[in-house]
Amino acid sequence: MGTDEQGTAPLYQRIYQHLHDDIEQGVRPPGSKLPSIRGLADELGCSRNTVEAAYRLLTSEGYAASRPGSGYVVQDLALVETSAPERPEILGVPQPRARYDFTYGNLEPGTFPAAAWRALTDDILLGVESVGCDAYNDPLGEDELRREIAWRMTTQRGMDCTPDQVVVQGGTHSSVQNLLTLFRGDADVVAMEEPGYDGVRAAVERSRFAVAPCRIADGYARFIDDLEASGARLVYVTPSSQFPTCQVMPVRLRATLLAWAEEHDAYILEDDYCRDFRYRERALPPLASMDDRGRVVYMGTFSKSLSPALRMNYLVLPPALLERWRSVFGASYSEVPWLNQRVLGRFMHDGWDRHLRRLQVRNRRKYEALTGALRAHLGGAFRIMENGTGLHLLVCARDGRSEDELIEAARAADVAVYGTRRYWVDPDRAPGGCVLVGFSSIAEEDIEPGVRALARAWS
Amino acid sequence: MGTDEQGTAPLYQRIYQHLHDDIEQGVRPPGSKLPSIRGLADELGCSRNTVEAAYRLLTSEGYAASRPGSGYVVQDLALVETSAPERPEILGVPQPRARYDFTYGNLEPGTFPAAAWRALTDDILLGVESVGCDAYNDPLGEDELRREIAWRMTTQRGMDCTPDQVVVQGGTHSSVQNLLTLFRGDADVVAMEEPGYDGVRAAVERSRFAVAPCRIADGYARFIDDLEASGARLVYVTPSSQFPTCQVMPVRLRATLLAWAEEHDAYILEDDYCRDFRYRERALPPLASMDDRGRVVYMGTFSKSLSPALRMNYLVLPPALLERWRSVFGASYSEVPWLNQRVLGRFMHDGWDRHLRRLQVRNRRKYEALTGALRAHLGGAFRIMENGTGLHLLVCARDGRSEDELIEAARAADVAVYGTRRYWVDPDRAPGGCVLVGFSSIAEEDIEPGVRALARAWS
Repeated sequence: MGTDEQGTAPLYQRIYQHLHDDIEQGVRPPGSKLPSIRGLADELGCSRNTVEAAYRLLTSEGYAASRPGSGYVVQDLALVETSAPERPEILGVPQPRARYDFTYGNLEPGTFPAAAWRALTDDILLGVESVGCDAYNDPLGEDELRREIAWRMTTQRGMDCTPDQVVVQGGTHSSVQNLLTLFRGDADVVAMEEPGYDGVRAAVERSRFAVAPCRIADGYARFIDDLEASGARLVYVTPSSQFPTCQVMPVRLRATLLAWAEEHDAYILEDDYCRDFRYRERALPPLASMDDRGRVVYMGTFSKSLSPALRMNYLVLPPALLERWRSVFGASYSEVPWLNQRVLGRFMHDGWDRHLRRLQVRNRRKYEALTGALRAHLGGAFRIMENGTGLHLLVCARDGRSEDELIEAARAADVAVYGTRRYWVDPDRAPGGCVLVGFSSIAEEDIEPGVRALARAWS
Repeated sequence: MGTDEQGTAPLYQRIYQHLHDDIEQGVRPPGSKLPSIRGLADELGCSRNTVEAAYRLLTSEGYAASRPGSGYVVQDLALVETSAPERPEILGVPQPRARYDFTYGNLEPGTFPAAAWRALTDDILLGVESVGCDAYNDPLGEDELRREIAWRMTTQRGMDCTPDQVVVQGGTHSSVQNLLTLFRGDADVVAMEEPGYDGVRAAVERSRFAVAPCRIADGYARFIDDLEASGARLVYVTPSSQFPTCQVMPVRLRATLLAWAEEHDAYILEDDYCRDFRYRERALPPLASMDDRGRVVYMGTFSKSLSPALRMNYLVLPPALLERWRSVFGASYSEVPWLNQRVLGRFMHDGWDRHLRRLQVRNRRKYEALTGALRAHLGGAFRIMENGTGLHLLVCARDGRSEDELIEAARAADVAVYGTRRYWVDPDRAPGGCVLVGFSSIAEEDIEPGVRALARAWS
């Protein structure tokens, strides 16, 4: 740990580092006593646990040893040296990729409700229920969290959903892979939007299913034709905010899609990853709420609204798939840690609504700031695809420049924007010269200067 | 939440419940003010945050509303009642299956180092690095944890292991499924021990690989013949404590197995799930430490030594598979939550060794207590398979009774023991009348009376 980082390190680490340096430099020679835990805690005005943690660390590394009756004594370093590889250090914080990083997916630092999470973790680990850490957990997810999710599906998303139907999962990719194990032998093809989310496409391909791209251009004009031609009996869609275009799936197509599924004994995997963020009008209800034949598998995530690093999402299974799921996964165990599920269940019970509202307000302000700045500074040479949803915008050059040229020019001005060609199965269909400008991670006050730097770089 | 549970509930819940009951019973009528947050906190000697949490809960459920200038005011319940489904309650603690539950796998309540976990969670969430919660995490795992694991592999397990080779995963089942995506098309057969771990067998079958059972009876006499005949190029083994027999794989077979892998361009998946617990002699070094041709994928877990509910394990990949793994999973993200990885990395740095030693001492005492009690009370009518490793023993009736008869007789005496037939692919090979008696979860002081009850039930 470098000296410059010590101001932000936890106190016990700073105590450890200070004593560690003293011992290494011979200020505290072998055989000398370290201050008593109580004395040092009083001197620093901290708890004894803090000092004790520092001393444990020194002890575990051989710098000191606890001697009954005489406290902690500095050890002879010559005896500690071994040929063992160097002990790992504690690492720092990742850096953004540019001064203005318009990345997509990561959230703005500080979004995660760390204080509430700490408090709830404390509550749970202090309570009798903490024994849940000592046992294998429910393969479908913890009851409390499943009930919280089902309650919101029913009251806020118009779905007819019982906690039984909710399965807690460890992220979109792995839940898609798990879901596909139920469908092996059913044509082994998944129809997907073209363009579409490459992460799910990779998960489908890892599961050895073929991907059948269904074009969404021109208001989904060829989507159903492509779907019918694919022979697929499973289609993955993002109706509330199509990724990466942020289009909303038209109501008529929704009805057609449900009829297609009914007719072909097929299932629709509705990834509603971005329902919580819309800036112009209310969201259409999910496909799952229109589905009275049990043809929709609904998928929600906490990655956009809470933390992408928590690795939690959920499926709402239609009754017909519930038994299949149970027979395949019922004898396994959940892939999502018990503690995280309990903390999230408690957080959804208490602090969720307030947290989400605050994030919605912030994202709306950022959406307005970004669309405003892009319109003001980029001018007519670029097309800005605004749909009033999502956490990014697509921006396309009208002058034939490629996405690589745009990205490189931006990067030279210390601005990061991102390519979109990879979202097409057939890159020849990609319009070319379109980049993704995300606002989930960048700070609101950086949006305007970032877009100005971008406009200069591209002018 | 029932009244009898209130003593153990967090304070904010008890405050909430008390006020909730007052409002429900009309003691606090609509329009009346709740005590001020500061006043109630002072009265109870707790922090204002605690009272505020209780008030937020009341507000979110419509029992109270915050009125600027006049604090929190009780709402009219008639206006709150809706046809919405009932709000989920907070749930309690799971119950053991019998007075004496000799289950396997779950750990003894209190094993999890909850205090250290809380403290480290606090440290991390209070520090600047907590922004890790706001971003997608490294698909291979967090550096610090991978370095801690690699350091132990090298210094304690004799393996030549760099942090690069370590991949943090979300449990044995899903890491096996992930690993198999690298081997599709390579015969699609996995050779496995017969008998063997049914959980991995199910994961293999979910991945649509065939299972080729290789018999381990009579000192692995037919193991290599079965393996050669299988055509498999991947074999799953548990050399340090074969599951479920707890046998240690003989040294000669280890060398033969490595030669087989080299000769067939095959890989050995070594699941070293129980290395930390042995009670008679030192463990043989892992196969991976004998492997100078990069033929072993090593797998370790934290489920036996820390928590089965944390869902963390790791693979150590040989260099030849590292690139394949990166090309398949490098564009995804880790399935293990960032926070859990950071806390565990820190815990391995500080408190791990002490924690493990304590658990080793405890499990050794329980092993001795169980083997002693079984020998003393069961007598010659049963064979007790002792191998000095593992967290369970197999006990087999010599009189032809079936495992179901043994389990039912035990259950009638409020003792839970478990069947073993399911560990055989071919149940006709199972010796019959063998049950699993685990000691990872039962308290030490329950072992002797539990075995006495079992002996009476079976006599």
